[in-house]
Amino acid sequence: MKLKVTQEKLSKALNNVSRIAVGKVTLPILNNVLIRVDKKKVSLVTTNLDLAIIDYLPVSDSEDGVITVPAKLLAEFINTLPKGETIELSVKDTKLIVSAGKYSSTINGTIADDFPEIPEINEKNAVIYKITTDELKNSLNQVLIASSNDLTRPALTGVYFNTYDNTLAIAATDGYRLAEKKIIDKVENEVKAIVPSSSLQEVLRSLSDDADEIEIAFNEDLVRFRFGEIEIVSKLIDASVPDYQKLIPKDNNISVYLNREELSRITKLAALFSRSVGGSIVCETKSPDTFSVKSIANEFGENDSELEAEVKKEGKINLNSRFLLDALNALEEKEITFSFSDRIAPILLKNKKDTKYTHIIMPLNS
Amino acid sequence: MKLKVTQEKLSKALNNVSRIAVGKVTLPILNNVLIRVDKKKVSLVTTNLDLAIIDYLPVSDSEDGVITVPAKLLAEFINTLPKGETIELSVKDTKLIVSAGKYSSTINGTIADDFPEIPEINEKNAVIYKITTDELKNSLNQVLIASSNDLTRPALTGVYFNTYDNTLAIAATDGYRLAEKKIIDKVENEVKAIVPSSSLQEVLRSLSDDADEIEIAFNEDLVRFRFGEIEIVSKLIDASVPDYQKLIPKDNNISVYLNREELSRITKLAALFSRSVGGSIVCETKSPDTFSVKSIANEFGENDSELEAEVKKEGKINLNSRFLLDALNALEEKEITFSFSDRIAPILLKNKKDTKYTHIIMPLNS
Repeated sequence: MKLKVTQEKLSKALNNVSRIAVGKVTLPILNNVLIRVDKKKVSLVTTNLDLAIIDYLPVSDSEDGVITVPAKLLAEFINTLPKGETIELSVKDTKLIVSAGKYSSTINGTIADDFPEIPEINEKNAVIYKITTDELKNSLNQVLIASSNDLTRPALTGVYFNTYDNTLAIAATDGYRLAEKKIIDKVENEVKAIVPSSSLQEVLRSLSDDADEIEIAFNEDLVRFRFGEIEIVSKLIDASVPDYQKLIPKDNNISVYLNREELSRITKLAALFSRSVGGSIVCETKSPDTFSVKSIANEFGENDSELEAEVKKEGKINLNSRFLLDALNALEEKEITFSFSDRIAPILLKNKKDTKYTHIIMPLNS
Repeated sequence: MKLKVTQEKLSKALNNVSRIAVGKVTLPILNNVLIRVDKKKVSLVTTNLDLAIIDYLPVSDSEDGVITVPAKLLAEFINTLPKGETIELSVKDTKLIVSAGKYSSTINGTIADDFPEIPEINEKNAVIYKITTDELKNSLNQVLIASSNDLTRPALTGVYFNTYDNTLAIAATDGYRLAEKKIIDKVENEVKAIVPSSSLQEVLRSLSDDADEIEIAFNEDLVRFRFGEIEIVSKLIDASVPDYQKLIPKDNNISVYLNREELSRITKLAALFSRSVGGSIVCETKSPDTFSVKSIANEFGENDSELEAEVKKEGKINLNSRFLLDALNALEEKEITFSFSDRIAPILLKNKKDTKYTHIIMPLNS
């Protein structure tokens, strides 16, 4: 195996793939990056068994072959070399020889036979969508906040990709709140799949400004994100997609129009005084043009702030201030709608104009 | 008590002082900031008993009085208010009332009688120095790296301010390396004092670009740093200043002239391969114009890099790569001198031209 590549390109590719290369005591080869040269095509591959990242490197001069070496060691070595150097990688037995001008080093590797097999999407049966990088980035950030870390309920640790009414929506819930974003309309193929949130976090970390568009391909049990020179292949979570839409209150009953930034500010102020009770706050309409947020506890003092509002329907509810702040942060417009149904049903938050994003929060017992 | 001040000024002052306000179970009032208005002069004070930070606030409208309230709560509350608001603080019983336009809040406080007394420098006997902010910042960063965290050897957890040959020098050592910087020449008054490194870190954190000059005043057991509206008063470490100068090899026997950045790069490369042996590397002169750095371990592979050098005297030594990198980072010039004496005596590192900064590192056993 032999290849020549610039320091910048190799460094960028290694930084991308080495992040997930964390060995397990029982499987230390997961520390390694697989470097394969096959007919002038070079790929760098790492995996944590749930997820694999593959970065294709454009190289000029190469000879076929394959090896695996510790990913973080190689990445740090290449990062430390001066920018602008041309780097030559070659293999001798199970050693990788790295040369760049006057710098040279030998890194002990492991033969590729021991490296886990990377699952591949079957292109024939795949359901494929395309979306702009910015749109996917923003939408994932809007729904990932509502997903759970509770590994005992695996279905809640992912984001649901699901089609209905010819629209592809993504949604997540931790049981206390739920966020949904409609990301592509007029879709032809159907999908119902739960993608692990951890895999989507890796997609977000790998997205750079190089790629304008992302291709998302689903198989029965796999999803592949492809953008620029990178492919991320992840297992799906094996659980049924819950029928979350019945949880969303009908939004034809808007209660209050509010300034998002101002509501965020008074929620933060009230939350400071509610720390001893887990950040519980009370949101309440006070008059046809006043909305109030106040802290529940008074160990540290008292806070009760008001803001101007357009109140259509009266209401009062106890909420977790952190959940409300997350939702306000995920909404985008200057004006938002805040809809009560009753004290034990979830509230519904939406942008005033754009209807693609929906956020609901369960109330706290009062 | 009453005072009016802009959000920006109050926010900045509270952020400065609240950092060290960390209550202890036995003394929860250390969570608090003392706010005192005395004849139109407003001071905010926090302390952790070893150290006190006092920030003087310029205010227009005020009434005398004093109170203490939780520092971080008040700081976060003020930070969250909109910039540009005028904030009014007033006291009712043991409560602080904060009003700013339509925002208002009551924070539960504690009477000031319970707040620890803040020690004061006796101006009459004080030894006072003045230094520019930039010079102190750079110099502290150059010596603090060599100070120790080992609380069982208190003298090593500070920086020695000491005068000799009419010069004020600062120095620190952890027993494995030593850094000294001459910061003021032609001084008239003598000082021998050990200032806790933790207090100096607070000085560094509080230094902003507002103040060009810092006044440093020493008493028998206290030091006070005064800059802009801020005073930091710290206890000194009660230990004798060691006679560290006899540890510094004479620098009239220069071994090698080297490019600092290039030496740093090949040290980093070698260090990657030395992780299993705590980062030990071998530095060696190879020819009249070659200097080499290599890793000692070969678990991960092998690395041996060379750089051009002007070798005056041959030598070979084992060093901790992290210590060498810290020193190279603290040096400033493009070219440096690297002086061996023998394999068990410390090496001496200096800028090639400027002689104010001295760094020595003990070798590792080989």
